Amino acid sequence: LVGPEIVEMITNRQFGELRATLEALPPDAVADILADMSLEHVGVVFRVLPRDFAAAIFEYMPLPAQEALLHSLGQEQVAAVLNAMAPDDRTALLEELPGAVTQRLLTLLSPDERRVATQLLGYPEESVGRRMTPDYVAARADWTVAQLLEHIRKVGRDKETLSHAYVLDERGRLIDDLRLREIVLADPNARLSDIMDRQFFALRADQDQEEAVREFQRLDRIALPVVDSTGLLVGIVTVDDVLDVAQQEATEDIQKMGAVEVLDAPYLETDLLTMARKRGLWLSGLFLGEMLTATAMGHFEGELARAQKLALFVPLIISSGGNSGSQASTLVIRALALGEVKLRDWWRVLRRELASGLLLGLWLALLGLARVHAWQWLGWQTYTEYYHRIALTVAAALLGVILWGTLVGGMLPLLLRRLKIDPATLSAPLVATLVDVSGLVIYFEVGMLILRGTLL
Amino acid sequence: LVGPEIVEMITNRQFGELRATLEALPPDAVADILADMSLEHVGVVFRVLPRDFAAAIFEYMPLPAQEALLHSLGQEQVAAVLNAMAPDDRTALLEELPGAVTQRLLTLLSPDERRVATQLLGYPEESVGRRMTPDYVAARADWTVAQLLEHIRKVGRDKETLSHAYVLDERGRLIDDLRLREIVLADPNARLSDIMDRQFFALRADQDQEEAVREFQRLDRIALPVVDSTGLLVGIVTVDDVLDVAQQEATEDIQKMGAVEVLDAPYLETDLLTMARKRGLWLSGLFLGEMLTATAMGHFEGELARAQKLALFVPLIISSGGNSGSQASTLVIRALALGEVKLRDWWRVLRRELASGLLLGLWLALLGLARVHAWQWLGWQTYTEYYHRIALTVAAALLGVILWGTLVGGMLPLLLRRLKIDPATLSAPLVATLVDVSGLVIYFEVGMLILRGTLL
Repeated sequence: LVGPEIVEMITNRQFGELRATLEALPPDAVADILADMSLEHVGVVFRVLPRDFAAAIFEYMPLPAQEALLHSLGQEQVAAVLNAMAPDDRTALLEELPGAVTQRLLTLLSPDERRVATQLLGYPEESVGRRMTPDYVAARADWTVAQLLEHIRKVGRDKETLSHAYVLDERGRLIDDLRLREIVLADPNARLSDIMDRQFFALRADQDQEEAVREFQRLDRIALPVVDSTGLLVGIVTVDDVLDVAQQEATEDIQKMGAVEVLDAPYLETDLLTMARKRGLWLSGLFLGEMLTATAMGHFEGELARAQKLALFVPLIISSGGNSGSQASTLVIRALALGEVKLRDWWRVLRRELASGLLLGLWLALLGLARVHAWQWLGWQTYTEYYHRIALTVAAALLGVILWGTLVGGMLPLLLRRLKIDPATLSAPLVATLVDVSGLVIYFEVGMLILRGTLL
Repeated sequence: LVGPEIVEMITNRQFGELRATLEALPPDAVADILADMSLEHVGVVFRVLPRDFAAAIFEYMPLPAQEALLHSLGQEQVAAVLNAMAPDDRTALLEELPGAVTQRLLTLLSPDERRVATQLLGYPEESVGRRMTPDYVAARADWTVAQLLEHIRKVGRDKETLSHAYVLDERGRLIDDLRLREIVLADPNARLSDIMDRQFFALRADQDQEEAVREFQRLDRIALPVVDSTGLLVGIVTVDDVLDVAQQEATEDIQKMGAVEVLDAPYLETDLLTMARKRGLWLSGLFLGEMLTATAMGHFEGELARAQKLALFVPLIISSGGNSGSQASTLVIRALALGEVKLRDWWRVLRRELASGLLLGLWLALLGLARVHAWQWLGWQTYTEYYHRIALTVAAALLGVILWGTLVGGMLPLLLRRLKIDPATLSAPLVATLVDVSGLVIYFEVGMLILRGTLL
């Protein structure tokens, strides 16, 4: 009688109730119920249950049912049902699958099925879990070296990445990695436990894939094992996939930093409308932001009318602020991505950008001062009898705007990281827009101060 | 009597004469002369001679002299002498070293010496040749499988990258690569020539290292062999080094695209003055460019005085052009770096950017039109009785500026690549600067056209 009820809940996407109903039953009873249901529904049910409960049910299922379940997790329909959930609900509802399921999923399924199934494993997008492959050799500590070599010959896939064998304990947890060369050179009758040093490095399946890139760079390895939250070996990640990740992450960062939503396909293969949408979204957002400059300019309309010469330098001053800001943000964003700068370094970044901003601001202020005087003296442009003060206004505004731009560009990436937003979102155009509006205010306020009693 | 003359030429850096003098002699005579000279001087002489002549001399030298020569090529002093040459002279004078020398250099020298020596190999900076390591196993086609296995056991280094053995012909040219697994599974008495398929892929030592990244991504390999211009195997490149290259190239591109000269050290380890210099150079360059905006604004001073409302939209319009331009340049630069777009695709890029620019320009023109009308109707700002025409001016200028920005941003990276300049040099701020000046001209010209007879 419970079966049809459950099917109804799946059809109506009442996953919360579904979970509550089943959790009230003993695991063996649930295993019985699942035996009568369609593959597709079993896949959904299994994926919605909490990790420990799912593991318990899995153990009560007969072997053929286990295999069928695993295949159902690789089916598009199961993925479709679960992908229809809102992402935040999904995160709250789906947990990591038990490690045993993950291991078998990876070995049993075809590459295509595996891609679908890993979406359902509970590992977030762009996590190490999504990059795992099953092309590893596992062994037990009580095997002899000869046994392991025989095992490698039997299961060893034709893989360049077969550089290590992984030793597991009786519960499937990773306890050591052995180099193939160590194994070949060891006494064939020795037990693995004798040649083990229990020193190994493993990635965690829920780690960000960018961290995997850094670990591979640090360790210069061909492949690294991946464990789940309980230490169970669930797969390996190979360096050729990590190279793809590094290139993809860099492309994403570069596109974001250029104020384009990340393209899902190469440039020439993205159709025109998608391209226009991905660029138009940002472009209109920036446009809305820049509209504030028109408002700010309107606010100072009176000043502009009286000191018309001020208008001439508006593009020069605000663009200098934007440029200094985008330099700072570029450097800090990339340093964050490479792990060279961490959040706790904010104070060092602040001091550095303050000092750089001051130096660069003073230098450009000097250039600005020279520009106004030179043009006045050469007679190329005239800036009224108060050209000294106009020059001073331009110089002081440049110093202020560049210092401000540098600070904004240097600190905002850290703030975004703190808020768990990708710092690369802070594109050069976005920094420029942020600095443009405040740059105008700085410029006109400085102008009112210096030109008071003369032009203003 | 020739010896002291040659030392003098080296001291005076007369490398051209040195080369001419020695080339006039038979190779065995030169080998004799070198026997009496200091290690440092031999290194310089050898590196200055043309490839074929150097190879001939090398063969006439006794074994200990050969080894001493190779070590001298790894010494800082030799590098220092040759690095003092102007880069263009150096390219004209130094050729690739003979492949035999390269092979021995890589195996004989310590990693530190090797770094120095590879500078002198004649391979350009950032070329594959600079990334080679000697950790490979080479074999002859007439060896048996058993012989090769014995050889691997003897010389096989403790390297994860030992995935292939490379088969050479009698002159050291690469003729095949054999997978370790193929070898292990083959009949031990078979000759290598029987199991060879003569299908292999090799990098060339003078190739750009960015191409190596692309080949590794395409082939999913752990290591690739490197040959010189005559097909001689001179080393291998491994994927972990390629990962470093990929990350380094991406960092360089990102920094350039953010208008910063490439930093040679991580952000926090770069001292303040270096940092200020690397940023100040670009910032002042952009400032000089932006000074043209002040000139352009001055040119339209009369129009600005009569139609003051036009000034309000200057930042909005020029920044929109800059933003659309930096989007286009970002996409095209990265696509070029990844090899997704080639020079011959310029026509497709042009059509694409024309269409995108038109779509985006029309969309933002619409937003601009709405902005002016909305503020006028809401009474937030007033744009005189001619606000319809002001709105039209803003809209038309936006369309023109965005179309122009998109074209400039999309086509300039291709032009730079054509001129053999790194397209990443075209930073977002540089595109913005280029578009700002022309954007102002477009804006005011459009204004004069539309406002003629009313405000202007």
